[in-house]
Amino acid sequence: MTTELDQLCVNTIRTLTMDAVQKANSGHPGMPMGMADAAYVLWTRFLKHNPADPTWPDRDRFVLSAGHGSMLLYSLLHLTGYDLPLEEIQQFRQWQSLTPGHPEYGDTPGVETTTGPLGQGFANGVGMALAERLLAAQFNRPDFEIVDHYTYGIVSDGDLMEGISHEAASLAGHLGLGKLIYLYDDNHITIEGDTALAFSEDVRSRFEAYGWHVLAVDGHDRAAVAQAISEARAETRRPSLIICRTHIAYGSPNKQDSAKAHGEPLGVDEVRRTKEALGWPPDAHFFIPDEALAHFRTARPRGAEMQRRWEAMFDRYEQVYPELAAEWKRRMAGALPDQWEQALPQFQPGDGPIATRVASGKVMEAIAPVLPELVGGSADLHPSTKTYLSAYPAVRKGEYGGRNLHFGIREHAMAGILNGLALHGGLRPYSSTFLVFSDYMRPGIRLAALMRLPVIYVFTHDSIFVGEDGPTHQPVEHLPSLRAIPGLTIIRPADAKETAAAWRVAIAHRDGPVALLLSRQNLPILEETRAADVAYGAYIVAEPENPQVILIASGSEVSLALDAQKLLAAEGIAARVVSMPSWELFEAQPQDYRDWVLPPQITARVAVEAAVPLGWERYVGSQGQVIGLNRFGASAPYKVLAEKFGFTAQAVADRAKACLQQRR
Amino acid sequence: MTTELDQLCVNTIRTLTMDAVQKANSGHPGMPMGMADAAYVLWTRFLKHNPADPTWPDRDRFVLSAGHGSMLLYSLLHLTGYDLPLEEIQQFRQWQSLTPGHPEYGDTPGVETTTGPLGQGFANGVGMALAERLLAAQFNRPDFEIVDHYTYGIVSDGDLMEGISHEAASLAGHLGLGKLIYLYDDNHITIEGDTALAFSEDVRSRFEAYGWHVLAVDGHDRAAVAQAISEARAETRRPSLIICRTHIAYGSPNKQDSAKAHGEPLGVDEVRRTKEALGWPPDAHFFIPDEALAHFRTARPRGAEMQRRWEAMFDRYEQVYPELAAEWKRRMAGALPDQWEQALPQFQPGDGPIATRVASGKVMEAIAPVLPELVGGSADLHPSTKTYLSAYPAVRKGEYGGRNLHFGIREHAMAGILNGLALHGGLRPYSSTFLVFSDYMRPGIRLAALMRLPVIYVFTHDSIFVGEDGPTHQPVEHLPSLRAIPGLTIIRPADAKETAAAWRVAIAHRDGPVALLLSRQNLPILEETRAADVAYGAYIVAEPENPQVILIASGSEVSLALDAQKLLAAEGIAARVVSMPSWELFEAQPQDYRDWVLPPQITARVAVEAAVPLGWERYVGSQGQVIGLNRFGASAPYKVLAEKFGFTAQAVADRAKACLQQRR
Repeated sequence: MTTELDQLCVNTIRTLTMDAVQKANSGHPGMPMGMADAAYVLWTRFLKHNPADPTWPDRDRFVLSAGHGSMLLYSLLHLTGYDLPLEEIQQFRQWQSLTPGHPEYGDTPGVETTTGPLGQGFANGVGMALAERLLAAQFNRPDFEIVDHYTYGIVSDGDLMEGISHEAASLAGHLGLGKLIYLYDDNHITIEGDTALAFSEDVRSRFEAYGWHVLAVDGHDRAAVAQAISEARAETRRPSLIICRTHIAYGSPNKQDSAKAHGEPLGVDEVRRTKEALGWPPDAHFFIPDEALAHFRTARPRGAEMQRRWEAMFDRYEQVYPELAAEWKRRMAGALPDQWEQALPQFQPGDGPIATRVASGKVMEAIAPVLPELVGGSADLHPSTKTYLSAYPAVRKGEYGGRNLHFGIREHAMAGILNGLALHGGLRPYSSTFLVFSDYMRPGIRLAALMRLPVIYVFTHDSIFVGEDGPTHQPVEHLPSLRAIPGLTIIRPADAKETAAAWRVAIAHRDGPVALLLSRQNLPILEETRAADVAYGAYIVAEPENPQVILIASGSEVSLALDAQKLLAAEGIAARVVSMPSWELFEAQPQDYRDWVLPPQITARVAVEAAVPLGWERYVGSQGQVIGLNRFGASAPYKVLAEKFGFTAQAVADRAKACLQQRR
Repeated sequence: MTTELDQLCVNTIRTLTMDAVQKANSGHPGMPMGMADAAYVLWTRFLKHNPADPTWPDRDRFVLSAGHGSMLLYSLLHLTGYDLPLEEIQQFRQWQSLTPGHPEYGDTPGVETTTGPLGQGFANGVGMALAERLLAAQFNRPDFEIVDHYTYGIVSDGDLMEGISHEAASLAGHLGLGKLIYLYDDNHITIEGDTALAFSEDVRSRFEAYGWHVLAVDGHDRAAVAQAISEARAETRRPSLIICRTHIAYGSPNKQDSAKAHGEPLGVDEVRRTKEALGWPPDAHFFIPDEALAHFRTARPRGAEMQRRWEAMFDRYEQVYPELAAEWKRRMAGALPDQWEQALPQFQPGDGPIATRVASGKVMEAIAPVLPELVGGSADLHPSTKTYLSAYPAVRKGEYGGRNLHFGIREHAMAGILNGLALHGGLRPYSSTFLVFSDYMRPGIRLAALMRLPVIYVFTHDSIFVGEDGPTHQPVEHLPSLRAIPGLTIIRPADAKETAAAWRVAIAHRDGPVALLLSRQNLPILEETRAADVAYGAYIVAEPENPQVILIASGSEVSLALDAQKLLAAEGIAARVVSMPSWELFEAQPQDYRDWVLPPQITARVAVEAAVPLGWERYVGSQGQVIGLNRFGASAPYKVLAEKFGFTAQAVADRAKACLQQRR
């Protein structure tokens, strides 16, 4: 750790970083230069990985939570021999390069998660470390530690200031995730200047209060870092935080320890001066000394050998436990068991009325036995969100065989941990809270959508019909706000039948997150709804001859639309009713299906949805009407609110008539 | 504190709570019953308030962060003599009563902030305590402590689990807000059961790590609570947390210490049994013993006398410092100085190109001297967001005379603290960060909108044109997501001229929050834009004779639309260009103005905005087109992104032609 070769290797990371940022004329050189020593120690002495196979299931996970330091990760990936050629490093931050400004999961081999929004990676790592424990409890057997890896991360002061780090750290300590080890880049510098401007907490005491094992070292003393990581690995009952006192832009004569080194290139002259100070050829660019590369690249044979040994163990495991091994392979491949759908309950109109959150609970209980990968929990609301899998225990410190997670009142960490569970592989995670609190989770939801992670959000209490709790607990803008997120599929079922179908879609959907929006209040189970059609996003639930007007609704408003249809029929007006549980699924259908459900020639249309109506013009058109809410709700029993806010069959019928009249 | 009368008073709170929740058949009885002792001590022994005048500027502020315990606050307000009659308590959680399910600012006299979403009140209180220090530094003079009050709060384990409490507490400790005193209701119960299911951190050590003064007492030992509050008041350099070990639903024979008492009525029988156990007439409802009421109501003469003495002091202050006193009155009334607008800079086309964030910075620097109430800061991004008021110092521990706040990387707390600053009165707070991180602030933004608080959000880096930082830092869904929030005004100016106008609107707008969305990249200062028209939300910036098509754009896309107009003109196509910086301002205009800008007969319309196009159909109609982004961005120089994603004048012109062709 202290040889000249080590120093050469570390300086290779520094100079690659400087050159890439300078060439892009954009980026963050300071952090990679400051953390190069500690990261080098971690990656060359401890990290269990095989650059030739970034998908090896039992690899250690590495999270660069301080994603702005992406060049640190790209340098390590290239140098240790991942499929990331030097040309890609030279294309740092350019269109379609494998080296985007912040690490993007799916873009670059070896990048375990997308980071950049601070604090998210911290929570992702907690999710990965938790996944490791959950899978170990399910799959490991005596002499077969199929699942046995660490989760490492580098976190910054920004990560630690963000509230999500508090939530995730508190839960990680509570759950005793001993194989989680974070290196904290304590460089005393933020964008505005010295961290002392805004940050004077005692990080050690804070993390000890969470139940963490805390160590502190000089982050440039590689032997000390190695010793600390060894101690952290030896501590099995507590997560570890290693506080590494570092100097941002280490080695730069004029910008070390300066906020100027945080988010902009050092400048051509300063790059040159820094190279000189580091004993580097000042005019070489992207220069990698052969002996440094050779040393880094020993990761490949070492990694291959580690993976080979693991695979040999797995082969023996497969002989002794063929069913477990097959299940493991299925789970890690993300495949579903054959005919799992047969476990879905069938609801009949006579089973209602029933809130869709209650129906969802019944669905979850029914599918849990056939989908052992389904694990999750709520942010202290399961008695309301109905997401507890009652046949299974809760996950506790030291007891990871359960399937129910008590996230505590920590929605933001819940979202980030969910992402980590999904990223790890082998699990199908869900979370739940009230829809109004999806706001607390948004940064994590966004990243799930960006990474196309197959996580499931159960959002109950989905409208003003929450009732007495009042506007703070009544979502109004959340439905359109979630619809705005690219890649997020939202399903708001009309009744129990559609709820079962929504779960079917959610489980089958692996290309991004799915949010289920469920009612607090009881809803009738409708004769007219058809589970099989939910997957199309919208379908005709009731059709008279020669419809003059179309009523479109989602969720609890579908039964209202059906009642309105009857009122209109009594007046001789023929109205088609369309249930539209999911815009995203509908928009994925061919144009002719969409035109069949919403024929262009029928321009009299009324949409009804108890939410801010943003965007409904897309479906009702210029001549249509939307019954929604352009205001916050109010505290009162929900039936009173329905009356006061115009969510009655009569109001819907009246608007349909007005719509027809206007056209005459 | 330990007399029979005291006990009677405390039990009056408990029984009022039980009765109100039972009558509503909805609500949270457990917390008010558990915290009745501690709250009674605080309100009758320490709280400086005058029930007859809830607007007295120097009153102590009281925040019930655990807003679900609203009946605790309503009981205290009624009993101490606020204008909240018993009939309102009997109408708990009913339509238009003054006693909604959670405390709503503006609905109920004496409610200082809207709470319920956990953690928000915690941050609001930090803002209030900070406001007190800022105003004291500006207005107090020797012998005239015009501003000299405490901020108290009751916080729950839920508040402490939420990340926002970490952020706000860390900052409160950093700033040494010694007059902030929180009572923590440590009742060991959450909705899912014992807090030990998810929460095992050492709260004392955690808060000490933040620099707080922490005390712990038996929350039912009123003398101990009183002693702790006295000690907390004596500590002037650190905020105080008093950990009150309590029993939820204290006094209920079967539901005390049970999660069942958290969020549902005790039940008729249990209410009866509890009353018996408390020595209460079991069949009386909403019964308030005369001697208890008389004792509580001593708050009125005591409060009137305190306010009278303060007013007498203020009268003397006014004689000695007439200008300061006038300024104080103006500030507390929320009035603006005469002709403040004259300080706004005038930008000319020759001053550009200039990013609107830079223009905004110039505006802020220019208006800061005439608007001393303007205080704020950024979440560690001011070098990028350009919101530092360089003529003024930063606020630091013990030095509160500055105007620049270093919030640290704590966006969520920033939003909550901003709300507290605004709620306090006397200040006009702003915050800043990148638009993409508005997600971290959403729960606080929502509450600002719900409370109609005059806060200003400066959101820079407002589109994919952030460039190299990539999709994690490029907002796409944030613009429509913010538009979905009722009561939030969003302005996305096209150039420096519109930016100055946007600030003018923002400062003048006192009925809700305003968000300014500003570019990272340079933009030309356009000949065509008109500052005076920004207040209308949309206006015609370029008009040929007999326009055939309308191009509508906001922000950086307005110059693009103007360029497209020229391309179209060269082909003989007449296009009107509309700059639409604000949907909300536009929708507040009369129909004839809106029809003048967007005449119904011109149905060929193209909107262009570098964001998810959700909702634009409202303005382009069924036959229009929207150039937006239905995907996340990418990491590359912004000009490359403009090309790749179709934000070019040619692409806009082509879409306009397609739109016209389609109609033929």
